[in-house]
Amino acid sequence: MKVLVLHGPNLARLGARDPAHYGRRTLAEIDNLVQSRGAELGLQVECFQCNSEGGLIDYLELEAQSASGIVINPGALTHYGLSLRDALESIDLPIIEVHLSNIYARETFRHRSVIAPVATGQISGFGWRSYLAALELMAQLLGDEQPSVTER
Amino acid sequence: MKVLVLHGPNLARLGARDPAHYGRRTLAEIDNLVQSRGAELGLQVECFQCNSEGGLIDYLELEAQSASGIVINPGALTHYGLSLRDALESIDLPIIEVHLSNIYARETFRHRSVIAPVATGQISGFGWRSYLAALELMAQLLGDEQPSVTER
Amino acid sequence: MKVLVLHGPNLARLGARDPAHYGRRTLAEIDNLVQSRGAELGLQVECFQCNSEGGLIDYLELEAQSASGIVINPGALTHYGLSLRDALESIDLPIIEVHLSNIYARETFRHRSVIAPVATGQISGFGWRSYLAALELMAQLLGDEQPSVTER
Amino acid sequence: MKVLVLHGPNLARLGARDPAHYGRRTLAEIDNLVQSRGAELGLQVECFQCNSEGGLIDYLELEAQSASGIVINPGALTHYGLSLRDALESIDLPIIEVHLSNIYARETFRHRSVIAPVATGQISGFGWRSYLAALELMAQLLGDEQPSVTER
Amino acid sequence: MKVLVLHGPNLARLGARDPAHYGRRTLAEIDNLVQSRGAELGLQVECFQCNSEGGLIDYLELEAQSASGIVINPGALTHYGLSLRDALESIDLPIIEVHLSNIYARETFRHRSVIAPVATGQISGFGWRSYLAALELMAQLLGDEQPSVTER
Amino acid sequence: MKVLVLHGPNLARLGARDPAHYGRRTLAEIDNLVQSRGAELGLQVECFQCNSEGGLIDYLELEAQSASGIVINPGALTHYGLSLRDALESIDLPIIEVHLSNIYARETFRHRSVIAPVATGQISGFGWRSYLAALELMAQLLGDEQPSVTER
Amino acid sequence: MKVLVLHGPNLARLGARDPAHYGRRTLAEIDNLVQSRGAELGLQVECFQCNSEGGLIDYLELEAQSASGIVINPGALTHYGLSLRDALESIDLPIIEVHLSNIYARETFRHRSVIAPVATGQISGFGWRSYLAALELMAQLLGDEQPSVTER
Amino acid sequence: MKVLVLHGPNLARLGARDPAHYGRRTLAEIDNLVQSRGAELGLQVECFQCNSEGGLIDYLELEAQSASGIVINPGALTHYGLSLRDALESIDLPIIEVHLSNIYARETFRHRSVIAPVATGQISGFGWRSYLAALELMAQLLGDEQPSVTER
Amino acid sequence: MKVLVLHGPNLARLGARDPAHYGRRTLAEIDNLVQSRGAELGLQVECFQCNSEGGLIDYLELEAQSASGIVINPGALTHYGLSLRDALESIDLPIIEVHLSNIYARETFRHRSVIAPVATGQISGFGWRSYLAALELMAQLLGDEQPSVTER
Amino acid sequence: MKVLVLHGPNLARLGARDPAHYGRRTLAEIDNLVQSRGAELGLQVECFQCNSEGGLIDYLELEAQSASGIVINPGALTHYGLSLRDALESIDLPIIEVHLSNIYARETFRHRSVIAPVATGQISGFGWRSYLAALELMAQLLGDEQPSVTER
Amino acid sequence: MKVLVLHGPNLARLGARDPAHYGRRTLAEIDNLVQSRGAELGLQVECFQCNSEGGLIDYLELEAQSASGIVINPGALTHYGLSLRDALESIDLPIIEVHLSNIYARETFRHRSVIAPVATGQISGFGWRSYLAALELMAQLLGDEQPSVTER
Amino acid sequence: MKVLVLHGPNLARLGARDPAHYGRRTLAEIDNLVQSRGAELGLQVECFQCNSEGGLIDYLELEAQSASGIVINPGALTHYGLSLRDALESIDLPIIEVHLSNIYARETFRHRSVIAPVATGQISGFGWRSYLAALELMAQLLGDEQPSVTER
Repeated sequence: MKVLVLHGPNLARLGARDPAHYGRRTLAEIDNLVQSRGAELGLQVECFQCNSEGGLIDYLELEAQSASGIVINPGALTHYGLSLRDALESIDLPIIEVHLSNIYARETFRHRSVIAPVATGQISGFGWRSYLAALELMAQLLGDEQPSVTER
Repeated sequence: MKVLVLHGPNLARLGARDPAHYGRRTLAEIDNLVQSRGAELGLQVECFQCNSEGGLIDYLELEAQSASGIVINPGALTHYGLSLRDALESIDLPIIEVHLSNIYARETFRHRSVIAPVATGQISGFGWRSYLAALELMAQLLGDEQPSVTER
Repeated sequence: MKVLVLHGPNLARLGARDPAHYGRRTLAEIDNLVQSRGAELGLQVECFQCNSEGGLIDYLELEAQSASGIVINPGALTHYGLSLRDALESIDLPIIEVHLSNIYARETFRHRSVIAPVATGQISGFGWRSYLAALELMAQLLGDEQPSVTER
Repeated sequence: MKVLVLHGPNLARLGARDPAHYGRRTLAEIDNLVQSRGAELGLQVECFQCNSEGGLIDYLELEAQSASGIVINPGALTHYGLSLRDALESIDLPIIEVHLSNIYARETFRHRSVIAPVATGQISGFGWRSYLAALELMAQLLGDEQPSVTER
Repeated sequence: MKVLVLHGPNLARLGARDPAHYGRRTLAEIDNLVQSRGAELGLQVECFQCNSEGGLIDYLELEAQSASGIVINPGALTHYGLSLRDALESIDLPIIEVHLSNIYARETFRHRSVIAPVATGQISGFGWRSYLAALELMAQLLGDEQPSVTER
Repeated sequence: MKVLVLHGPNLARLGARDPAHYGRRTLAEIDNLVQSRGAELGLQVECFQCNSEGGLIDYLELEAQSASGIVINPGALTHYGLSLRDALESIDLPIIEVHLSNIYARETFRHRSVIAPVATGQISGFGWRSYLAALELMAQLLGDEQPSVTER
Repeated sequence: MKVLVLHGPNLARLGARDPAHYGRRTLAEIDNLVQSRGAELGLQVECFQCNSEGGLIDYLELEAQSASGIVINPGALTHYGLSLRDALESIDLPIIEVHLSNIYARETFRHRSVIAPVATGQISGFGWRSYLAALELMAQLLGDEQPSVTER
Repeated sequence: MKVLVLHGPNLARLGARDPAHYGRRTLAEIDNLVQSRGAELGLQVECFQCNSEGGLIDYLELEAQSASGIVINPGALTHYGLSLRDALESIDLPIIEVHLSNIYARETFRHRSVIAPVATGQISGFGWRSYLAALELMAQLLGDEQPSVTER
Repeated sequence: MKVLVLHGPNLARLGARDPAHYGRRTLAEIDNLVQSRGAELGLQVECFQCNSEGGLIDYLELEAQSASGIVINPGALTHYGLSLRDALESIDLPIIEVHLSNIYARETFRHRSVIAPVATGQISGFGWRSYLAALELMAQLLGDEQPSVTER
Repeated sequence: MKVLVLHGPNLARLGARDPAHYGRRTLAEIDNLVQSRGAELGLQVECFQCNSEGGLIDYLELEAQSASGIVINPGALTHYGLSLRDALESIDLPIIEVHLSNIYARETFRHRSVIAPVATGQISGFGWRSYLAALELMAQLLGDEQPSVTER
Repeated sequence: MKVLVLHGPNLARLGARDPAHYGRRTLAEIDNLVQSRGAELGLQVECFQCNSEGGLIDYLELEAQSASGIVINPGALTHYGLSLRDALESIDLPIIEVHLSNIYARETFRHRSVIAPVATGQISGFGWRSYLAALELMAQLLGDEQPSVTER
Repeated sequence: MKVLVLHGPNLARLGARDPAHYGRRTLAEIDNLVQSRGAELGLQVECFQCNSEGGLIDYLELEAQSASGIVINPGALTHYGLSLRDALESIDLPIIEVHLSNIYARETFRHRSVIAPVATGQISGFGWRSYLAALELMAQLLGDEQPSVTER
């Protein structure tokens, strides 16, 4: 089973960008960690970063059909990317929204996610570990025989 | 190391209460799962449920001093329990807020957490697995030699 | 059939507290009236007053299973008691919200009830008679062979 | 003693209109029930339906002087009929606002009543029984020797 | 020159309705005063009262063509009568909005007039004298050789 | 099949009223155009104008039962006519809301339609052609064998 | 009897400042008109202009004691001059607020007057004639034997 | 004469994406229908879909100069695409905004269009027929000898 | 005369909890200071701390009858404790609200007190000295022969 | 050590102005009380009243340098005097805001103080005693060896 | 050509007041810099500081007639000085608003300028250099032969 | 030293687009002016225009490392481009936001810049001269030996 891990705008600069909020690991390091953990969990992980909302939607159009789950850190699109939201809403797969920082402990405009209502769940505030926790929960959701909401 | 797992109002009725949102497992079953997983992770887990905000604060006053981390599902206090927030804010430990359901996919009043700004991070939408993921992340946070934010 | 009649914070002081808004009868007098009328209607009425939201939820956890209907005056919890709301929402019984005073003719903050959306109906502004009218309507709801909404 | 029972816009179509919210009885059936119950209570009940706010005010101008109480279901005028509110406010009689459905469990715009602040009390959510309960409370209010607020 | 004096909902009950806000004179008395003063000013005054917004618009459709100015007390339609506003906006005559009471010293909902933006001016708070002052200002506006805004 | 075409307040004055927003054709001319086009499409078109919300609801009560579709320009009732909305909502027919002007390019209060949520669709900004386009779409909706939403 | 006529900030430049909103007469010309009309009405009129809120309050402190009424055009202080409001509120005399332009037909921030709630009444939109109308109404208010609100 | 038909984000997935809101036809099918109908109307129709706001603006920069009219379904950019709005506002051609679903009957955030104020008109709620109706209205607007607003 | 000094949620941890906002003295130390100062002023001071809103109301129900004044630091209940507000409002004694920190210099949610409107006065920002100042003012209020508002 | 006591707009009229809110003592009497108490506390008190925001700032510019603390009743400037706020914010001294009346029990616009966030603390609702309590607290703050926030 | 440079409240204390926001240069130093630079640009610069809104308006009334442009730092009046706005709006000269600090990076209340809508342009965030940049832009605006907006 | 000059969406059409707001010069002309002036100031200026937010972020990722300062006109992204904001916030260089038109004198949605809080300063309203002024200020900021905020 394939899981897509998407990184939104500005995440390519992780490690360089504001370490107090986002930590010191680079995106390549995180992608390696995620793919290794995926391998252990029996998941094929495909990582993709894009600074453009349209590019993320293009990618989902092409790749979501062959995937079993999506992990996404939408970056600042979290707060206004309604087109990305529509793209995710139309995909009938488990979707986990992750954030490196605790978005609820930062500026007010970061407290509202337009993505969360169409996701299965959200994990925020644990740095790169947010991605790993998401991957592990995804493996469990995908492993359920009855992946209904009430058994989650 | 001891980790406190707190359950807020109405969580004693889990399993009976609205399975579409909260799943079918009882609180006792979840507490067992959490404690087993804690044992595997080398953590002593102490579970506590209370329907009263004051009771949760009383518990924290007594127990937080001897603990190394707190996992809390504040129930509906999430949205207005400012006294509980003050109690948590004054405790200098990692705090993870969990929710069984995806609170951002429900009524508008559930989209705002007054607890989140004083927590380390938040996990919502994965049913009883939210607790387990929180416990695993807690183990990692407590295991870090430099548990600073920038290393998360 | 048993009907629970719950009184929220400050209602123990009825008669003493602000007679212009709440009338001069004491809570004991009202409970007597309610129980007498219940007897006439063939209902066993159990009354309970508590100043704490947690206490009201505790009571519902214990008693709602054996009851057929709930009449509740939530006091000021009407306006912010989201935990009480959750407790009531998870109980699959007819619930009638009552208020002694007309809450819509008082301060703005009293115009919004967080309880009303999970109740069957609401009666406000008739003093102690609000309770009696609620009890009579409850008797009718419970007496319906087809107590569906469309037959109400 | 005469009691006016007013029905606002669209209530003539009761029974036909959305039974899930309003029940299956026609307005004529409800008027019959109300008048029978009035007779039992010693009240002369006069029923009037009008789709126009102005028509309701015209009726009140003509009839309120000879009445002892008013029961009104303002329909959607509940939410914006400030002229109707002024008409009712200027009448020095007990006024009971009734709603068939629980307006607080429906769309947000239905949660605010501009009529309630000038009514004695409000009953909502009990279908046609809301009218009967209103009539019974009216009989009690009119029967009081001291119908002051503090004695309600 | 003919001036229309329109009275909105509930103004027929002047004198009876809340004298603290509206004074003790009846509408007939005010109409007499207005017509007498009109005669002195060389104006033919036509008075019309209607409880229905539609009725006021019907009247304007028929009569505005033969008139030179309009004085209107829209009653509570002041605050939501957008259809009346549209009717007035489409009439190319001086329009003076009057209120018996000082609407800015009453409930918040009375502070906003949807009519005022399409009127020439507004007079509020002087009881029946508001009408007379409006008539006198209308006479002056109509008497101007250059009734442009900048010469008002 | 019969289609009702309703015109709300102030539309009788079309042609006279503010041509910059509403065009120069009279309502009679538009009704003729609409009826001719209806004849071509095999539809019987019945036109009705009323300045009163209550009058529009009265008309719908009488006529909607024998009709197959409704085209309505609610005039300024668009923005506050909740009673009209209720009337339309209870009619199980295709309903098309039309506006002569682009209401979204005018004053802020005109940007919100309380009618639109209960209509099938909305057409605004094309002058009298808005009506013709609505009629043509109505003909298509009525001609569908499976007029379900998903086949639209 | 003495009447104070106060002009707030920027009114000294009348005639020069934006004639489309304020007309072409200078403040001196208006003061002359007001004083002449005052003489005819048997009133001694004292005019005062000041660009500073503090200066207007100083003036009221000194002069209000010997006056019988106040006419005031607060200029832009209308919208935020809460200190001026307090000064006027503490003076037990009839107070008439005047505006040259129709403040309700201008920018949104001009629609709210913080002065109006403490005034007897308001006149806006009639250019310099607003002052004369205010003076005439003041004369009537002062001439009443029973200048109570209900007789206005 | 050439008409551009633009489709915003996620419209490439039509047919696959949520048929309850958007219908079952694919975008290619709709483009065929639109082009056929264009040919009948004597219009050359050029269709373009893009998931990126920047891409839509790039296209308009290149193509709008040679076009006579624009039909656009902005997808979720409807609600926040202010750059797209600026691009459209600076083009001096008739612009028709279309939506497959009735955006006013869906989530609150979909009720506001930032595009509508710069469009000539809007059509929403008729599925693929919204495009055809837009094309027909465009043909009429372009065919007018005096395509002024007042003749629309 | 007896004065009750109430401490709301989390105040038991004073000294330990966030010294930057609340100072370093423990609650026991403050209670000693308050009682000593009370003795000097001839007042019997009874101190009570509780983390539960219901517990504070229970205490007031029992003790307020024998007291002459109340000093209360409601902790975070300041901002949402409407039940506590009702309890205080129904007590006909001088009530002084105190805060250790300047609540107006902290997070926005701390700027609104739902308690203040039912208190006699408020003192905030002076650490433990807020309590002593409150006690001294209470002594003066209780010592007044005419403790009316106008003599304060 | 010198303490400045500033009185904002309208406070010169104390005793005359609305005794229900502000008491019957004149400002001169209060200044005497304050200066006497200051002498007892070893403080030189300088009192200043001004109706103009600019005048209060001028005074602070001249006098704050030689002072050790500031007590200020900003009058209605409390609610909008941002320039006064800036003046106070730039002064590195203890600042105590006082109010005669309980501003939180009055009109809504009086509930927000723009001054409070830059003050050390606030005292409201105790009439002239608010000033004395402020002076006593100021003496204590100035007497502290370590006047840091955490020792307050 | 003469250019007025106005400094609003508290700017006299520059250098002393909060250097982190406003820099260390005194107002006299800035005035010298501005006047030297003015001389180089062929402009006569007249500087004026006042702590009172009224004083700034008085100055504009006297001096604006003989000036060719205005540079103004309104201090905190930026956010509420509507009288100053009116004064500037009525002056038909180029007006440049300057701020030492970046007002958009500070408290929320500083993000809104009531002055900006009536200015030609705004420069904020460059310390004393904001003034010099404004002067240079003013020189260019005044040097244009066609100082129309479209040539700016 | 290199300075990046970025132009956001729609700026490629300058000269063609709405000259009343943006002037008649083309972007190429402005880029020439900016580069010439840069050369005089000893700065290498690199200009870049892009209609896509993602494209601007891509460019910053590649080029910001070799630059010493950034001048940016974000076009309509000013009002919602939170991803662009994040990109700029993470770059530790002086950033100057420029606008051709005075955004505060246009539609309300243009009054809020999400970019300004992360910029050093902002210049708006001076057409192409806004860019030149920004470049000159940038040269000064870069030339400062101590480019700290307090020396600006």
